Amino acid sequence: MRPSGRKLDEMRVVSIETGVMRHAEGSCLIKVGNTHVLCTASVEDRTPPFLKNTGLGWVTAEYGMLPRATNTRNRREAATGKQGGRTVEIQRLIGRALRAGVDRSALGERQIVIDCDVIQADGGTRCASITGAWVALRLAVDKLMKAGQIVSDPMIGHVAAVSCGIYAGQPVLDLDYDEDSAAGVDGNFVMLGDGRLIEVQMSGEGTVFARSQMDQLLTLAEKGVGELVAAQKAAL
Amino acid sequence: MRPSGRKLDEMRVVSIETGVMRHAEGSCLIKVGNTHVLCTASVEDRTPPFLKNTGLGWVTAEYGMLPRATNTRNRREAATGKQGGRTVEIQRLIGRALRAGVDRSALGERQIVIDCDVIQADGGTRCASITGAWVALRLAVDKLMKAGQIVSDPMIGHVAAVSCGIYAGQPVLDLDYDEDSAAGVDGNFVMLGDGRLIEVQMSGEGTVFARSQMDQLLTLAEKGVGELVAAQKAAL
Amino acid sequence: MRPSGRKLDEMRVVSIETGVMRHAEGSCLIKVGNTHVLCTASVEDRTPPFLKNTGLGWVTAEYGMLPRATNTRNRREAATGKQGGRTVEIQRLIGRALRAGVDRSALGERQIVIDCDVIQADGGTRCASITGAWVALRLAVDKLMKAGQIVSDPMIGHVAAVSCGIYAGQPVLDLDYDEDSAAGVDGNFVMLGDGRLIEVQMSGEGTVFARSQMDQLLTLAEKGVGELVAAQKAAL
Amino acid sequence: MRPSGRKLDEMRVVSIETGVMRHAEGSCLIKVGNTHVLCTASVEDRTPPFLKNTGLGWVTAEYGMLPRATNTRNRREAATGKQGGRTVEIQRLIGRALRAGVDRSALGERQIVIDCDVIQADGGTRCASITGAWVALRLAVDKLMKAGQIVSDPMIGHVAAVSCGIYAGQPVLDLDYDEDSAAGVDGNFVMLGDGRLIEVQMSGEGTVFARSQMDQLLTLAEKGVGELVAAQKAAL
Amino acid sequence: MRPSGRKLDEMRVVSIETGVMRHAEGSCLIKVGNTHVLCTASVEDRTPPFLKNTGLGWVTAEYGMLPRATNTRNRREAATGKQGGRTVEIQRLIGRALRAGVDRSALGERQIVIDCDVIQADGGTRCASITGAWVALRLAVDKLMKAGQIVSDPMIGHVAAVSCGIYAGQPVLDLDYDEDSAAGVDGNFVMLGDGRLIEVQMSGEGTVFARSQMDQLLTLAEKGVGELVAAQKAAL
Amino acid sequence: MRPSGRKLDEMRVVSIETGVMRHAEGSCLIKVGNTHVLCTASVEDRTPPFLKNTGLGWVTAEYGMLPRATNTRNRREAATGKQGGRTVEIQRLIGRALRAGVDRSALGERQIVIDCDVIQADGGTRCASITGAWVALRLAVDKLMKAGQIVSDPMIGHVAAVSCGIYAGQPVLDLDYDEDSAAGVDGNFVMLGDGRLIEVQMSGEGTVFARSQMDQLLTLAEKGVGELVAAQKAAL
Repeated sequence: MRPSGRKLDEMRVVSIETGVMRHAEGSCLIKVGNTHVLCTASVEDRTPPFLKNTGLGWVTAEYGMLPRATNTRNRREAATGKQGGRTVEIQRLIGRALRAGVDRSALGERQIVIDCDVIQADGGTRCASITGAWVALRLAVDKLMKAGQIVSDPMIGHVAAVSCGIYAGQPVLDLDYDEDSAAGVDGNFVMLGDGRLIEVQMSGEGTVFARSQMDQLLTLAEKGVGELVAAQKAAL
Repeated sequence: MRPSGRKLDEMRVVSIETGVMRHAEGSCLIKVGNTHVLCTASVEDRTPPFLKNTGLGWVTAEYGMLPRATNTRNRREAATGKQGGRTVEIQRLIGRALRAGVDRSALGERQIVIDCDVIQADGGTRCASITGAWVALRLAVDKLMKAGQIVSDPMIGHVAAVSCGIYAGQPVLDLDYDEDSAAGVDGNFVMLGDGRLIEVQMSGEGTVFARSQMDQLLTLAEKGVGELVAAQKAAL
Repeated sequence: MRPSGRKLDEMRVVSIETGVMRHAEGSCLIKVGNTHVLCTASVEDRTPPFLKNTGLGWVTAEYGMLPRATNTRNRREAATGKQGGRTVEIQRLIGRALRAGVDRSALGERQIVIDCDVIQADGGTRCASITGAWVALRLAVDKLMKAGQIVSDPMIGHVAAVSCGIYAGQPVLDLDYDEDSAAGVDGNFVMLGDGRLIEVQMSGEGTVFARSQMDQLLTLAEKGVGELVAAQKAAL
Repeated sequence: MRPSGRKLDEMRVVSIETGVMRHAEGSCLIKVGNTHVLCTASVEDRTPPFLKNTGLGWVTAEYGMLPRATNTRNRREAATGKQGGRTVEIQRLIGRALRAGVDRSALGERQIVIDCDVIQADGGTRCASITGAWVALRLAVDKLMKAGQIVSDPMIGHVAAVSCGIYAGQPVLDLDYDEDSAAGVDGNFVMLGDGRLIEVQMSGEGTVFARSQMDQLLTLAEKGVGELVAAQKAAL
Repeated sequence: MRPSGRKLDEMRVVSIETGVMRHAEGSCLIKVGNTHVLCTASVEDRTPPFLKNTGLGWVTAEYGMLPRATNTRNRREAATGKQGGRTVEIQRLIGRALRAGVDRSALGERQIVIDCDVIQADGGTRCASITGAWVALRLAVDKLMKAGQIVSDPMIGHVAAVSCGIYAGQPVLDLDYDEDSAAGVDGNFVMLGDGRLIEVQMSGEGTVFARSQMDQLLTLAEKGVGELVAAQKAAL
Repeated sequence: MRPSGRKLDEMRVVSIETGVMRHAEGSCLIKVGNTHVLCTASVEDRTPPFLKNTGLGWVTAEYGMLPRATNTRNRREAATGKQGGRTVEIQRLIGRALRAGVDRSALGERQIVIDCDVIQADGGTRCASITGAWVALRLAVDKLMKAGQIVSDPMIGHVAAVSCGIYAGQPVLDLDYDEDSAAGVDGNFVMLGDGRLIEVQMSGEGTVFARSQMDQLLTLAEKGVGELVAAQKAAL
């Protein structure tokens, strides 16, 4: 019934390749089916002004998409002169998601900037970005710990995200672009590795949904995040 | 236990005054405690280009906040030269929420622009905006129907929104600013009048939450939205 | 002969309500007929760089208009990415007008930012803004004096403004929108309470005017400002 | 008593050289003492959208200043990314002034854009711009008439402008930079050649002025404009 | 003597992998040592307005660099709100280079947009971009020809580019970052496959060079371009 | 054969008038035929941040063109909100060219900003800008030396630039606009007075060129620069 032939609760093939960027303190290329995102972590000694002298660190993210990551070419945001609303929304989400998985006091007064650049898009880019971003962050933190710049591990647990939705009346896991553009209800679920929730965004543009459907999607999401965390572990 | 002395499941006082703007096709001033938002609906004969000749209408929203709506003055976005990420995120949410409650085919090929301008802020401005925006939209649609420009009512049901969160370890309804800035988990719930869900956004910046807590907040939200819908009905 | 039925030298009804904003150091809602402007004063401890260590304070203003303050919706300046020429011109005028009524040495090295936001427009918004802005400024200064932060009153006198013009060949006081858009000559007069002039702007777009007409308008303006100052006094 | 040794009612030396630009339909270099402005008129076959099919033409102006026209270098507006408030204010004034001297119906549905670029500044640049702009406009209209594209002369009369102010307590004509930066009251007067007024802007930043002083400045301005119109005639 | 141990006239290892992007009409990933650029070609049915009804096509290019392509993170141009001067310069060069190798009449009234995104940078990104861009363009044109949309091949010949410079007093081929940042003279040479020149840019920031040195670099460039053209042929 | 009747190796008439701007530390108006550029040098005590405490100075340039410098009016860059790609490219070239002729250590930790504003354009504006900019820079440096602020002359030699191209199949010196817009190959050559090269930019938009043609153009350029340096010497 799904265009890809997958079962309702079947994720696409996930692969995470680490160390793909020569310069970054942490990096990976995450592939969730045909969605490919390059994630890098850059460590900076300064924090945003509002954290000055608080002893707390910061993790933030920026998101971009190559113009031809999609079926038809999108205008380059650098050329249009601003990041679109969707981009802003996604990068704020990635940042919040990662910070929920970090003890910012243990991180110390430094900033880690995560760049998530979508090389190829086939639905679920924000979830793939979060899942890959966490790996890049983990690698950068490991490097700081090895160098003795951080003493106690600030990483609280794995952070991963997956989308679920109601497609053709059925709850399905890990929507690809064909499903996403036809889905009545679409949700993004960010979780810790132990199943606790960090962020839930469910939206029914042009339709509504029942509480019971929300529960079904949450159950699917728990399954998906479990598999993504396993992929993160395998990659590290 | 709440700074305001309210019970855990107690909303702030809600008032909705309609017809407050001389020029707009629909308008109201919604007050949720000390959060005051002016909502106007403007009917335009044109739609966005992508809807040309589809027979479908469009509802969109813009959000703004007066510089001194808050405790310390915020920079005026018109002067800084762009809308901030938070503003963009909120106005996209308001637009999606309203569209979920409208049959865009019955609306016909026209656009209704909702402006939500926060006159005074004390937490929950996006939820108050949605609840007030729906009233302004309802009034504008009524006007179009009275004028015979729309034949069949495109409004599917009431749309209202409320925030809930975990404050001091307890699930509470309708967070004010003091609670919002201290809450570990913060959620916004947009619903139809019949309790079905339109959008759920739960976020635990710096913390995580369990599925059971999510359920508690949803139950609170259902109560709050019920009261907001009653206020909408009273106002119309 | 005037669309509103007013006499040639008759102002619209003026009301000024103070203390309308919870957070601002000074605020008022001024209504001049159907023109409604919300004015707030925000006290800041810093001054613009060019005043550093001069002992002089600064008063500045920003002006905005809600998108649906007018008969047809105007584009939101925050969304277009810049303040239009008219906005810039008006806010510079408001700032100059207020500074002429303040002893900046007695004010001390601080800045007071006045925000004038037009909630509803029916002609004369810049004049109503100046008149209301002065009330907000007065209230903020009173607060600083009560707190002992300012010792000697820096307010030189009342500042108020009114528009006059030649409508249908006759000099009229306090143009509303219908008159303003049809007037051959349009003037804005900013004065101190004692009748001395702060700023005069007379313009005959598409026409010209004689020196004697300018005198007639000035005489009308003196009457109007007298009534506005009385309204300011009544409000305080 | 004046820094330049001029009498109170003495203009600086004025020269207007026409035809200085090879490409423009009309052009002149106006020098008012050390203030030098290059004015060009460009004829365009289109009008702004709001005039489409009205049979009316449009005259508009843009103003700029070379970065080193002044004593210390100003930042280039093209590099900062926007025109400053002062620039916007001035170019709007120039446009209004010129339009008041033109029968836009006789001009026909075309636009003439006047560019006023300050090569060197020593006070009074906006007035010199208006006076020179009129000459460039006159030349461009002459060219259109010679070519038979305009039948009846749309130019109502000469338009010229001069600044006057209260300097060291005395009313003086044609302020240079030294006077302008010290003047208590500063006025710009735009007039037709027959002495009728087009625009009056008087401003007392940091001070106030009496109606009688305004009269004195107006009398000075009439003298100055008379001399500027004579210079315009001599140049043509 | 070279940091990499290469001989003076030795290129880095070049590889070009085609078909790396699922959606683009043509694509490749070119690696010149550690400089990696992803090039895509997007075919559009419209041309820039100035070519309307001329029968001529257009080829244009955009260039970008991932924030962490370099040793220290660069600010994302989409976030800063504009493309930097270097970016603009490079993408104009790529466009000119490609157009010189295309018969725009045979291409027909369509536009091909080439996106060159630097994934990793180690010097010579503009040259690698041109060389890769040509491959992407060739593939897109092949696709149009196979589909019968273009009848006669518009590609005049191979276009490739290489940098040469004076490093430590010696002329060297294909500068990497270490050499580039220390080189006294730096040149970029764009050529057709038959050795004819399309663009030469030689620059001696902080130094000067003799005509004989220019000749030496040209000779090196001819060798390099020969090898790059061989790599292009191998990839297709 | 040339539209102007000039011989193949004949420059247009060159004139350089110094001291044309009252305020600038150095200035000249350079005319190369009908191309007229006003160049000013402004000395500033600060340098860009990256030179702080290095003892090195900086020379930078900005380029602009009056809207009606050309045959049809160009949009004012200050009004469009950004400098175009061509402007950015040219001003970067001018800056690099000048820096190559300056010992930045002898200049000391200060910045000289050169503004090149094209008053009238007839081809070759970037080359005229460089040649005139050097004169303005020389004058500003002389002034600093006379004032004892610089001890040892930082100027290495004359810097001048000329364009050459292949027009109607022939190599020609100093292209004017008619030639430039029709030329197959177009080159800009920046040289020191002793004939050594600073920058070479040759471009064959829509065509290609042979190495032997490049040699011919270089020989022409050497002749042209010789004459420009003579004009610089005559002006000083």
